[in-house]
Amino acid sequence: MQFHLNGFRPGDPHLADAAPGLPARTDGVPPEVDVLIVGCGPAGLTLAAQLAAFPDIRTCIVEQKDGPLQLGQADGIACRTMEMFAAFGFAERVLKEACWINEVTFWKPGETDAGEIVRHGRVQDTEDGLSEFPHVVLNQARVHDFYLDVMRNAPGRLEPHYARRFVDATVDDAADHPVTVRLERTDAAHAGQVETVRARYVVGCDGARSAVRKSIGRQLVGDSANHAWGVMDVLAVTDFPDIRYKAAVQSAAGNLLVIPREGGYLVRLYVEMDKLGEEERVANRGITLEQLVATAQRILHPYTLEVREVPWWSVYEIGQRICDKYDDVPAAAGGRLPRVFIAGDACHTHSPKAGQGMNFSMQDAFNLGWKLAAVLRRQAVPELLHTYSEERQVVAQELIDFDREWAKMFSDRARYGGDDAEAAQGVDPRAFQQYFERHGRFTAGMGTHYRPSIIRGEDTHQHLATGFVVGTRFHSAPVVRACDAKPVQLGHAGQADGRWRLYAFAGADDAGLRALCEFLAQGPESPVRRYTPAGQDIDAVFDLRAVLQQRHADVDLLALPGLLLPRKGVHGLRDYEKVFCPDLKNGPDIFALRGIDRARGALVVVRPDQYIAHVLPLAAHQALAEFFSTFMRAS
Amino acid sequence: MQFHLNGFRPGDPHLADAAPGLPARTDGVPPEVDVLIVGCGPAGLTLAAQLAAFPDIRTCIVEQKDGPLQLGQADGIACRTMEMFAAFGFAERVLKEACWINEVTFWKPGETDAGEIVRHGRVQDTEDGLSEFPHVVLNQARVHDFYLDVMRNAPGRLEPHYARRFVDATVDDAADHPVTVRLERTDAAHAGQVETVRARYVVGCDGARSAVRKSIGRQLVGDSANHAWGVMDVLAVTDFPDIRYKAAVQSAAGNLLVIPREGGYLVRLYVEMDKLGEEERVANRGITLEQLVATAQRILHPYTLEVREVPWWSVYEIGQRICDKYDDVPAAAGGRLPRVFIAGDACHTHSPKAGQGMNFSMQDAFNLGWKLAAVLRRQAVPELLHTYSEERQVVAQELIDFDREWAKMFSDRARYGGDDAEAAQGVDPRAFQQYFERHGRFTAGMGTHYRPSIIRGEDTHQHLATGFVVGTRFHSAPVVRACDAKPVQLGHAGQADGRWRLYAFAGADDAGLRALCEFLAQGPESPVRRYTPAGQDIDAVFDLRAVLQQRHADVDLLALPGLLLPRKGVHGLRDYEKVFCPDLKNGPDIFALRGIDRARGALVVVRPDQYIAHVLPLAAHQALAEFFSTFMRAS
Repeated sequence: MQFHLNGFRPGDPHLADAAPGLPARTDGVPPEVDVLIVGCGPAGLTLAAQLAAFPDIRTCIVEQKDGPLQLGQADGIACRTMEMFAAFGFAERVLKEACWINEVTFWKPGETDAGEIVRHGRVQDTEDGLSEFPHVVLNQARVHDFYLDVMRNAPGRLEPHYARRFVDATVDDAADHPVTVRLERTDAAHAGQVETVRARYVVGCDGARSAVRKSIGRQLVGDSANHAWGVMDVLAVTDFPDIRYKAAVQSAAGNLLVIPREGGYLVRLYVEMDKLGEEERVANRGITLEQLVATAQRILHPYTLEVREVPWWSVYEIGQRICDKYDDVPAAAGGRLPRVFIAGDACHTHSPKAGQGMNFSMQDAFNLGWKLAAVLRRQAVPELLHTYSEERQVVAQELIDFDREWAKMFSDRARYGGDDAEAAQGVDPRAFQQYFERHGRFTAGMGTHYRPSIIRGEDTHQHLATGFVVGTRFHSAPVVRACDAKPVQLGHAGQADGRWRLYAFAGADDAGLRALCEFLAQGPESPVRRYTPAGQDIDAVFDLRAVLQQRHADVDLLALPGLLLPRKGVHGLRDYEKVFCPDLKNGPDIFALRGIDRARGALVVVRPDQYIAHVLPLAAHQALAEFFSTFMRAS
Repeated sequence: MQFHLNGFRPGDPHLADAAPGLPARTDGVPPEVDVLIVGCGPAGLTLAAQLAAFPDIRTCIVEQKDGPLQLGQADGIACRTMEMFAAFGFAERVLKEACWINEVTFWKPGETDAGEIVRHGRVQDTEDGLSEFPHVVLNQARVHDFYLDVMRNAPGRLEPHYARRFVDATVDDAADHPVTVRLERTDAAHAGQVETVRARYVVGCDGARSAVRKSIGRQLVGDSANHAWGVMDVLAVTDFPDIRYKAAVQSAAGNLLVIPREGGYLVRLYVEMDKLGEEERVANRGITLEQLVATAQRILHPYTLEVREVPWWSVYEIGQRICDKYDDVPAAAGGRLPRVFIAGDACHTHSPKAGQGMNFSMQDAFNLGWKLAAVLRRQAVPELLHTYSEERQVVAQELIDFDREWAKMFSDRARYGGDDAEAAQGVDPRAFQQYFERHGRFTAGMGTHYRPSIIRGEDTHQHLATGFVVGTRFHSAPVVRACDAKPVQLGHAGQADGRWRLYAFAGADDAGLRALCEFLAQGPESPVRRYTPAGQDIDAVFDLRAVLQQRHADVDLLALPGLLLPRKGVHGLRDYEKVFCPDLKNGPDIFALRGIDRARGALVVVRPDQYIAHVLPLAAHQALAEFFSTFMRAS
């Protein structure tokens, strides 16, 4: 963490200076805002936390419920999501409270007695080196709490307005605040009162039954569900030995998934109940908690399960559905610019067992947040906003396809050792485990691979940095900070502050790096010069970081280009945290780990949402300038 | 973290259930308490945080200042202190905010030009494997904040009473609350009002000028100071390349120590000013900030130093002083039991540059806290309280001796390359660096080695676990938790909850471990049976942890003795977190790292303050029972 740049200030460094001229919070929603967010779920809060970071953006977030969530449904947190939490500054809180998923075990019907389950496999949950973070499980409500803290501490001092139902939205492109939204208050004291908010942009993060989605005439389409599943969080006593592992159980009596939960005692059980008829809804089955428990007990036989407390349970049908577009611009609308967006469950729903719903929703918002901020702050042209739906809809469709296959496999009967026709059918447990392992990257949240666009370059120079794949998230690696020999993760330079990162990996000598710095500092085409507003710190828009090949003790820090030791803030203090060296003490160094061309070096351009926009030669000054010129606005 | 044991509860798991019958907090201090703590410094807050963990202990902490500290003097946090912070549950907050000291560099006068300093050495700050935590630097005020959070969230819901000056204390051993303390309120609204508190025990954590110490007739004795030093926290621009390293500079113009501070910009400089005359006090020198800055600039020549902001500065004389006893029992008092204690700077003062004052003070309080709790909760005989002064005074004297030598060396002129008489005198820079390296363990806080006592066994069986030295702190090592394959630090089982830890390392087979569990669960002499109150969880007093030799995947968890999978809480849920296996993936496993006898195993008995009380054979059931019988009370 960096602080005290503009003078020493006592107290909690997480508490940012409040935005100048921030209006006092009122009971009513503000009449005019830059962005109105509808819904305080994971997507809405991610977006709100992102926008609250900018002192010059006015945001309002409303929620239909009366207050913060106490007990959420979602719980799985993918490695990729942990990386994003690090950018928002609360990864360490999640790591501490959450349950870590370290291994997954697989159970099937026994060879001799198909009525008894036996363990047949065990795999590491996350492959080595996939991320610097583990896969963890934590009640969604705690994730909300952490986001609410970030919002509260941010310059925008953002707090949700609860007990507001979205009524409708109208768009008048000619107006300064084109979207007019009506909200109905639902708390007893104000029931029925209607408030009107005029916003430049509206984002519907209001879940699978999204009213914002309906208001822009879009709908979720996809499979009808034909499998009923139950899910329950239990405090239980059992002699099933893998109750603290993620355990996938395929039994002759049905399937079950064990997800251990935070705190060491709580466990979530997903229990297969019934095949549903065509168009039949699970609600009509009248499945009870007692049935759920009894089914789980049958599946786990010969192990016992004594349920002592059930804080939460539910019954649902599996269904994958998706919206064809995530904004209010019709496919054939040509030049119209989007004003209303949807994100999260409003756009796509999944089987909970793939553990993707909450994770994907937050990534939607992380993708949209910086784009809205860049347009509102006049750093980027508004056409940038088209890329939100373009990027996120495609990767969601890929996830849905994966998810459908996974859910089907999970609901199928396991093949077991009987000699009847039934025994020969169904999924081979070994194939099931192999599929699980193959798709580890997807479930870790690493399946996202954006296609070329105005903000994603072609991979012409991918060979310069084969481990930093253009269009995927920047894969962090350990380095040593040159100024103080601190071992750090390079990727953690990427905070959720709307800035672009330029990671310059030095070649065999420092000439390419020096020339790049010279260009960025002095060149008339330099993006740093063109797009950084006067009076702001030199790294306010582009945060240049250098990775050298030599040992940190051999670096002559003060001899490096000034851009790598920039003077900042009211005192003109030097920022020493821009230069890194390989960590030679622990395993292969970052040049080897990420396939950097040691002779020529590489420049890796990373977006504010941590995705790699471009890989370029250090000397490709013109290409770098051109890349940014297509969507950025000169200041 | 473990939670939800007694039923699911939403919200922050750090917030414990409030103690039953906790009186509402009033503006005035409570008239009667178990423990009155005088002073909200590091020692006082450590003690308060420890005592607040026990719902059945009533504590009051008072402070002369009007409110929480905003800007503290102390900043160095030793590895050992980080380990204690982990026990209090806020190590991750410190790791995030603090500046890490990774390497130390050494500077001396140049060979050719003694007026210019040159770097002549560089060492890693903390030797590999010394602790799982780094050495860090953070404003003392933030450490206070973290303790205040722990106190607020604890069952005792403890908050300090500010603006109280300790007036005097009288002891009447016959009374139920033997110590009567008068406090004078110092805030404007209540100025001059005197409050009376009757306490079972009083602890003076009120600093070097301790009024509590005076009230028990004790005094600090030691060296007169004869060196004036200045210290300043600065935001500055410099081309001195090691400004983000801890850098020890010996120049022809004097000595200086650079300590980089949290946030990436702030730096603390200790600057040698003048030799003082016999009995001369630094206050009489009238040293100004301008002189301090000018001296620092001279020492750093040829590098420049432009100071832009000085949040804090001070001038002090080096002096090591110590009190001969830390309680109110005269040396020859025989059977009298202590009622008034002193801790921290009230008992000992140090040169700040050894970075020990705050760290040692907190360890005083950590040593005393569990003893007071054990006596107040009738788990232990009150004679246990004698061991506080016995243990802490001795190790403080050792620290003072180290500190004196270190400070002297630091204040001496460096020998440099001139050929005059002056050049040949002084400290050899190489010897200085070697001394620094040799004493790394001391400055890391690992110098403490308690002597045999009623709570520290003889080291007869030390050979069974050569890496767990009796009398020193339990040195954590990485292990894998058997129930879920999570990689964890074994030592982090040791939370600041007043419990004893019994770490049982299995031998070649599990027979010794099983017999030990059998004894502890069933033996008539079993400490677990004798000292655990009825109705409490089986691990409420003794927390048994087992470390097996096999891979976690080979452990048949449910076949282990019930004591290793204990049923706890209102629901009788199984606690799965008692059994560990070697971490075979990363380096040598814990049996190799800590020299455990693989054939016979070992039992390592660890006190509530993380110090090793005993190493015993697994089969030494009788010796184990006898050890505890000398100071524990049957429940």
